[in-house]
Amino acid sequence: MNQLELIQELAIKNNTKIVLLVLDGVGGVPLQPGGPTELEAARTPNLDALAARSACGLSTPVAPGITPGSGPGHLSLFGYDPLQYEIGRGVLEALGIGFDLQPNDVAARGNFCTVDAQGLITDRRAGRIPTQEGARRVELLRSIRLPGVQTFVEPVKEYRFALVLRGEGLAGGLRDTDPQQTGAAPLPAVAYDPAAQRTAELVNQWIAQAARILAGHPPANMLTLRGFAVDPNLPKFPDVYKLRAAAVAVYPMYKGVARLVGMDILTVQGEAPSDEFETLRQHWDAYDFFFVHIKKTDSTGEDGNFEAKAHVIETVDAALPALLDLKPDVLIVTGDHSTPSLLKSHSWHPLPILLSARTGRGDRVTAFGETACLGGSLGHMRHVDIMPLALAHALRLTKYGA
Amino acid sequence: MNQLELIQELAIKNNTKIVLLVLDGVGGVPLQPGGPTELEAARTPNLDALAARSACGLSTPVAPGITPGSGPGHLSLFGYDPLQYEIGRGVLEALGIGFDLQPNDVAARGNFCTVDAQGLITDRRAGRIPTQEGARRVELLRSIRLPGVQTFVEPVKEYRFALVLRGEGLAGGLRDTDPQQTGAAPLPAVAYDPAAQRTAELVNQWIAQAARILAGHPPANMLTLRGFAVDPNLPKFPDVYKLRAAAVAVYPMYKGVARLVGMDILTVQGEAPSDEFETLRQHWDAYDFFFVHIKKTDSTGEDGNFEAKAHVIETVDAALPALLDLKPDVLIVTGDHSTPSLLKSHSWHPLPILLSARTGRGDRVTAFGETACLGGSLGHMRHVDIMPLALAHALRLTKYGA
Repeated sequence: MNQLELIQELAIKNNTKIVLLVLDGVGGVPLQPGGPTELEAARTPNLDALAARSACGLSTPVAPGITPGSGPGHLSLFGYDPLQYEIGRGVLEALGIGFDLQPNDVAARGNFCTVDAQGLITDRRAGRIPTQEGARRVELLRSIRLPGVQTFVEPVKEYRFALVLRGEGLAGGLRDTDPQQTGAAPLPAVAYDPAAQRTAELVNQWIAQAARILAGHPPANMLTLRGFAVDPNLPKFPDVYKLRAAAVAVYPMYKGVARLVGMDILTVQGEAPSDEFETLRQHWDAYDFFFVHIKKTDSTGEDGNFEAKAHVIETVDAALPALLDLKPDVLIVTGDHSTPSLLKSHSWHPLPILLSARTGRGDRVTAFGETACLGGSLGHMRHVDIMPLALAHALRLTKYGA
Repeated sequence: MNQLELIQELAIKNNTKIVLLVLDGVGGVPLQPGGPTELEAARTPNLDALAARSACGLSTPVAPGITPGSGPGHLSLFGYDPLQYEIGRGVLEALGIGFDLQPNDVAARGNFCTVDAQGLITDRRAGRIPTQEGARRVELLRSIRLPGVQTFVEPVKEYRFALVLRGEGLAGGLRDTDPQQTGAAPLPAVAYDPAAQRTAELVNQWIAQAARILAGHPPANMLTLRGFAVDPNLPKFPDVYKLRAAAVAVYPMYKGVARLVGMDILTVQGEAPSDEFETLRQHWDAYDFFFVHIKKTDSTGEDGNFEAKAHVIETVDAALPALLDLKPDVLIVTGDHSTPSLLKSHSWHPLPILLSARTGRGDRVTAFGETACLGGSLGHMRHVDIMPLALAHALRLTKYGA
C-alpha cells in the first residue's frame, strides 16, 4: 500500500475548510552570501504574524537536489509522489496551453525544424521562428484530415506546438520522432507498446501530409514530435481525500494539472492575488479544499528580477487579510519549488512552509522566510507529506490500526 | 525508477569541480554530558570560517541507528543506497587488503580455526593466532592447485585471510562453510545458486587439500570460508553522474570501494592531509569530481584516543587552505560514519556536514561541529542525498518533468 492508498483508507469527511496557498517559485537564495532571499527582503507583516502563530519548517518538493517542473512540483503538493504518478510531456504541453484534454486523447509536443534537400535536419528549432510564424504554420496543419480520428494542432511558443489525436482505440506508447541531433532525418513514429500500433500509423500519415504542407515554408519546413502521452488517469483528489476541491489559478498549466486530479476549476475575475482571494470567498461554502496558485513569484524569479519577485510577495501579503478573514481551519502557505532570481530558473532548494491550525504545535519562528523557518516545528519535510498533514490538522484522518 | 536511475537521467556535463572531503569517522559524542566532541574540542578556524559561509546540517549514513561498515558507508556517500547495492563480504575483504580483484573473481573471507580429532571445531578463531602465524599458513595454502582456475590466498590479520578464485564460469552463490558454533564440523561449500555448482566443487577440492596441509599445524589446523561474492558490477559513478571522478585515498579499502564504482585512483606521495590535497592540486584539471579520504580520524577514534582524534582534525584544518585555494565550485565536508572515542568503534550517529557553493542557502551556523550544525539549512539529511545535492549545486542536474 503506498502513501496515497493509506491516506485514502483513513480519510473521512467533516465540515472543516483547508486552503493550500502556493506561491509558485517563492523560495530563493541570497544574491550575496549573508544577504536576504526575495522572501526575506520583502516586507511581509501579515505572513510574519501568521508564521508567529503557525508551525513552520522547510519542505523539499520532490527529493534533495531535484529541480521539479510544474507537473511534478504540483503532483507533490497534491500528495502524489511524482516518481510513482507521472504525467507525460505531451499531456503537460497540452495542459500548459489550456487545451481541454479528454481522457483518451493522445497528446504530443511538436517542434518545427529545418531540413535540407535530402530531408536531414539542419536546425532542430527552425531558427527559433517568432511565435506568430509558428502560429501561421499551425493554421496550415489544421487542414490535415485522418481517417476516423480528430486532430487538434495548437501553437505554443516560437517553434513549439501541440498535437492532439482524439478517437477510439488510440494509445500513447510511441517513441519520439526527434532524432535529437542535426544531420539526421526525423524518425517515423514507432509504437513501443503494441496497443499503439494504429496510433503510430495515423501519426505517420499526419507527418507525411504535414511534410508536404511545410515543404514550401522554410525555415520551418518540417517537424518532429515528442512525448506522446495520454491522461495518466490519476486517482482523483476528491475521491482520495474525500474533499470537495477547487482550484483558484490564473495560468493554464496549473488549472490543467488541478483538473487532471479532478479538482473543479474556478473562474477568477482579474489576475491579482486579491482577485484570487475574492474568488475563494465567493465559493467558500461550496468546497472543503482550495488550491490557490500565485504565478508571478515564479515568472519574476525566472526573469532574474529580485526586486519584482519581492514586490509580488508583498502584494500577496497585502491581500492576505481577506483570506484570513474566511477563517480556514487549516491554512498552508508554501511554493511548488524555488525559483531564485540568482539562477533565473526553477531550483531544488527547499521551500519555507507554514501550517496554521488550531491543532498546530508552535515554535519560535516569528517570520516567514527561508532562514527563519529553520528550526520550526515542521522540521525538514517533503511536499508529498503536506496533504496528510493538512488532513490530520483538519481532523479528517482516522487512526491507523487499532 | 530508483534515485540513482533518476539522477543518471537528469545529469549533464559542465565545467564545474566538485570535492567530497571525507573525514573517516569524524563524528563523535562527548566523553562527559555537556562536553565537546572531538570535532568540537579541536581548534578548527578554517573549517569554522568555511561553515559560516556554507549550508550546514547533520547527515545520517545509512539509516537511523545503523552503524555502517566502510563498504555501506562509502556507497551511501557515493549516492548508492547500500540496501539496494550490496557489496559481498568476500569482495570487501579482498578490497580491504588492496587485492586487485577482477570482474569475475570469486572472493571469500577465510578464518583459521581449531578442530579436534573428530574434526569438530573447538575454537572458531584458532586462539587468535598472531598475524605472522596466519601468514605462515597462508604461504602453505598457496601450494594448492585447482583444475582450470587460479587461486589466490592472502593474509589479512591474525586468524583471517582472503581466498580468491579466478577463471571462467565461476559464480559467488555459495553458502558459508562456517557452522557458526563450536562442536560442529566445518560445512562443505554448497551452491544455493545452480550457476555456482562448479565453483562449489572446486572450493571443496581446495578445502580438502587445505585440511591435509593444516592438519599438522595446530592450533590453526583447519579453516572456514564465508561471504563468497563477486564484484557486484555496480553502475559506474562516471556513467551515472557524468563526472570524471578520481579518488585520493591512502588506505586500500577506500581505494578499493572507489575503484569498484569506477573512479580513477590517484597515487598520493605521503600520508598526511596536506599530501592528499597536493595530489588533488596536481590532477585538478583532469577531473570533475574528487573523493578525498582522510583515514586517521577513524583509527584514532577506534583507539579511543580523544586527543589524538582531535589532533588529526586539526591537521586537516591546517591543510584546508590548500584545498580552498583550488576554488572548487562545490565542496562538501563530512564523514562516512561517526567513530566516537567513547565507543572505540564505528557508530550510527549522524555526521556534521557542510556544503559550500555559490548557490548555497546560508544559515546561522558559524562553526563546524555536531551541535553547531543543528539548525543549519541542510537540516537532517541522508548520505545518499549528498551526491544529488552536490550535482544540483554544480548545476549539473536538469529539470525533472515539464
